[in-house]
Amino acid sequence: MKTILTFFLITWIPFLTHAQTSVEKWDVFELSLKGPTQGNPFAGFEFYAEFTNGSKSFRPEGFYDGDGNYKIRFMPSEEGVWKYETFSPKEALNGHKGEFTCTAPSSANNHGPVRIRNQYHFCYEDGTPFYPFGTTIYEWPYQDEQRKLATIETLKSSPFNKARFLAIPPYNNRYMEGPTKLEDFPFEGTSKENWDFSRFNPPFFRNLEEWIERMRDIGVQADLILFRPYDDGKWGFDQMDQETNKRFVRYVIARFAAYRNIWWSLANENSFIESMTDEEWDELFRLVQDKDPYQHLRSIHNAGRIYNYTHPWVTHVSLQYYIAVRVPAVTPLLRDLIKKPVVHDEINYEGDISSRWGQLSAEEMTFRFWNAYIGGGYATHGESYQHSPWISTGGTLAGDSPARIAFLKDIVESGPEEGLEPIDQYYELNMAGKAGEYYLVYFGKEQPRHWDFVLPRNEMKEGLRFKAEIIDTWNMKITPVDRVFETVRKDNYRFIDKNNGRIKLPGKPYMALRIQRIE
Amino acid sequence: MKTILTFFLITWIPFLTHAQTSVEKWDVFELSLKGPTQGNPFAGFEFYAEFTNGSKSFRPEGFYDGDGNYKIRFMPSEEGVWKYETFSPKEALNGHKGEFTCTAPSSANNHGPVRIRNQYHFCYEDGTPFYPFGTTIYEWPYQDEQRKLATIETLKSSPFNKARFLAIPPYNNRYMEGPTKLEDFPFEGTSKENWDFSRFNPPFFRNLEEWIERMRDIGVQADLILFRPYDDGKWGFDQMDQETNKRFVRYVIARFAAYRNIWWSLANENSFIESMTDEEWDELFRLVQDKDPYQHLRSIHNAGRIYNYTHPWVTHVSLQYYIAVRVPAVTPLLRDLIKKPVVHDEINYEGDISSRWGQLSAEEMTFRFWNAYIGGGYATHGESYQHSPWISTGGTLAGDSPARIAFLKDIVESGPEEGLEPIDQYYELNMAGKAGEYYLVYFGKEQPRHWDFVLPRNEMKEGLRFKAEIIDTWNMKITPVDRVFETVRKDNYRFIDKNNGRIKLPGKPYMALRIQRIE
Repeated sequence: MKTILTFFLITWIPFLTHAQTSVEKWDVFELSLKGPTQGNPFAGFEFYAEFTNGSKSFRPEGFYDGDGNYKIRFMPSEEGVWKYETFSPKEALNGHKGEFTCTAPSSANNHGPVRIRNQYHFCYEDGTPFYPFGTTIYEWPYQDEQRKLATIETLKSSPFNKARFLAIPPYNNRYMEGPTKLEDFPFEGTSKENWDFSRFNPPFFRNLEEWIERMRDIGVQADLILFRPYDDGKWGFDQMDQETNKRFVRYVIARFAAYRNIWWSLANENSFIESMTDEEWDELFRLVQDKDPYQHLRSIHNAGRIYNYTHPWVTHVSLQYYIAVRVPAVTPLLRDLIKKPVVHDEINYEGDISSRWGQLSAEEMTFRFWNAYIGGGYATHGESYQHSPWISTGGTLAGDSPARIAFLKDIVESGPEEGLEPIDQYYELNMAGKAGEYYLVYFGKEQPRHWDFVLPRNEMKEGLRFKAEIIDTWNMKITPVDRVFETVRKDNYRFIDKNNGRIKLPGKPYMALRIQRIE
Repeated sequence: MKTILTFFLITWIPFLTHAQTSVEKWDVFELSLKGPTQGNPFAGFEFYAEFTNGSKSFRPEGFYDGDGNYKIRFMPSEEGVWKYETFSPKEALNGHKGEFTCTAPSSANNHGPVRIRNQYHFCYEDGTPFYPFGTTIYEWPYQDEQRKLATIETLKSSPFNKARFLAIPPYNNRYMEGPTKLEDFPFEGTSKENWDFSRFNPPFFRNLEEWIERMRDIGVQADLILFRPYDDGKWGFDQMDQETNKRFVRYVIARFAAYRNIWWSLANENSFIESMTDEEWDELFRLVQDKDPYQHLRSIHNAGRIYNYTHPWVTHVSLQYYIAVRVPAVTPLLRDLIKKPVVHDEINYEGDISSRWGQLSAEEMTFRFWNAYIGGGYATHGESYQHSPWISTGGTLAGDSPARIAFLKDIVESGPEEGLEPIDQYYELNMAGKAGEYYLVYFGKEQPRHWDFVLPRNEMKEGLRFKAEIIDTWNMKITPVDRVFETVRKDNYRFIDKNNGRIKLPGKPYMALRIQRIE
């Protein structure tokens, strides 16, 4: 009976289609089609739609969502009428045509997907600057509803506008036995003994989608980690063959690429998946590059063996290398070597656990953040207190660095719109801003009692007037300096104040200066 | 008459051939042939020989050396009989056959060319470790005989075993007007007005060869810089078209590749040659890779735009980035990113000139050297005193860093044969050696009064016994610590002395510790 009905549906009945007639720019247009359930609906055929507004066209792949439902999602990037037509060797999925109207973006926080700007920085597609201030909540989609809601509420009131989390949960006994037993896994099955890697499990992905949407709605980028080594030999999700990896990537893209807040992180600590070669990562990167119609940002996060970020399919650096934020001036070198934005996506975590990667003081976390931004880069926070494992499960924040990171974020967001650039980076260890206009000087753990007004020659000339403020990055206080500085040339490299001005400093660590041109 | 004789020689007379019958391994076998002088003997034909010992074969290109002399040079890398045959569309150069015997290396300092070893280090082809301690004498081949001899004598008694210098002199009025007026330039002609870029000037290259040989004989690697931006618009040697660049590269390779001490440095401050793109540098690199039968080391030295060292045709990093040696622990990051040996080939110069790149104190130069080697890399010295412009002309050394560099070299050469490796580089900023066996701990500008005996877990276990020495890197004194340390585990990451041993230090900068396992 089932077979007969399916046959009947496929060949004779007008196909059931469900789609919006209107969608706002950079939101998700979704086309739903009924199609065959026999065989393996996840595998072995092409299914995509061509969307065009006359000048641009896109070909997102569709996916099977279970229960005979096939879907194609599309993120329109221009207002106006978009027409589409579906293509598939399965007749039920082929030849569906329609159109919808893309309206102006109206939702809160809808600025489009994040793009690279000015080589080392980011902005939304509508041109609004985006300065990443990331955090890490690896397993949050796999927690109970209450905790997920709490995470969203915490993010809303935090400085964090990007979150790294795993598209495949890490192995943990609590996901098998409880207290947070998982009902759904990425593939059909319940354990290593019976996964069917040829069939995805749609409810698992619908959960991810729901929470990616919630992030989108509060303006948080979902830095989605596709593969991870945290399997302990229990599930085998880090030991799938490359064909399965590729099917997984295509399925994830088909489902998630239309969400404007998606970033693709190919892996966390990729080299800990010892069976995978860099050439296999290359292949997965190229697959993402090929299949994602919107070219969301792409990177990969390393363990010991660092992936080659200079490959053209990598959009930005997503580095784990702690000393790179412990000493100043490493980030400019990374920028100059790799020529892409540098995001220090793991810099150890504020916390008190026994593992040394989770023992930072709030002061040290704040220090590392400042080092990253003063270097013209970006950083990602994480918190690992024994009583509050934010990096694992989300929930609430317990540490003292987020308030300081928010303070830094305010400074960055009110600084040069183009983002902080290193100034004279071969010689100056601790200066960023916009040459000639705006300078942040960060003293880190040094405890100077004064700072002579000396600025590098870049974009500088005589007679420019500057105001200065003393920033206590830990106590979050900004104190104006009660005078104006006016530049004269000191030598071939430097300009000073015409009255040999110097600024008194309190002899404490974690101080900075903000120097801005006036008039 | 000349034309007739030439014709006669080409077609009828048994060709005049001159070649050795015996040459020691890694020395230069040279085949000289008489050939046509009409037309442009430098251009427009192929000329090479195939050398084989039965198991290996090489095809070095020949070159025209002027006056009807054509030469092919070959560096045999295996003892025994090598046979050769020449190939050319010019009949006079074609079909010459012969053989010679390659004997065991017997010259002083003949260990063969330098190769990469253990990914991040170097050794000679005979397996002898080579730890680069470079210096910089850009223009020395263009000085008078006495000064060149003085340079050789200075190098002999210095720690330096690699020298960077230019294959094309920089523009300087003194080379046109005097006092060191040049008689020979790379191309035929005497000034920008009359260079014939299609014709090389053999005497110019013979001079370079002579002094590369002298360097070889005293065991110094010739890090030969093929292109340079220092032209000031006067000669145009930085504005040649790419076809001329390629001819120049081939000619240089044909002449110099058989010298075992050659390293190819494609350029100094390459991006200051603003007309050349990275793709053009790629092409020149691939040409060197293709034409050099012996695969000498290849790199390029940067100005602002850093060439992508991850390209497969680059054998090692040749970086100019001063802060990379001003703060500890950058070199391990460079190694981990690029996965090749790191040579900091310009770290500013000891000196007193007005340019800030030539104002280092000897202490600072020594400090930067230590930072490079403690990071698992290598460094290159230079000296720019007003009264002694070593980096330009060679001659004699006036600075105080070379003695300290010699002291460091002794330590490195008596350390682990594999070279210094960073130990626990994500957490330890100042430690290198061989885990479990040998540690150098360098305190730089810090002035500690003691050091607690704490070593990372890498290759460590309980009950290992270590001796320690206090190294004053500036005063060049090594003071043994009068006790033995025995390891016990402190926590998951560290081992300490079973009696909580600590080492008293003098509270001075530039101190180091050497800790070596005993028994």
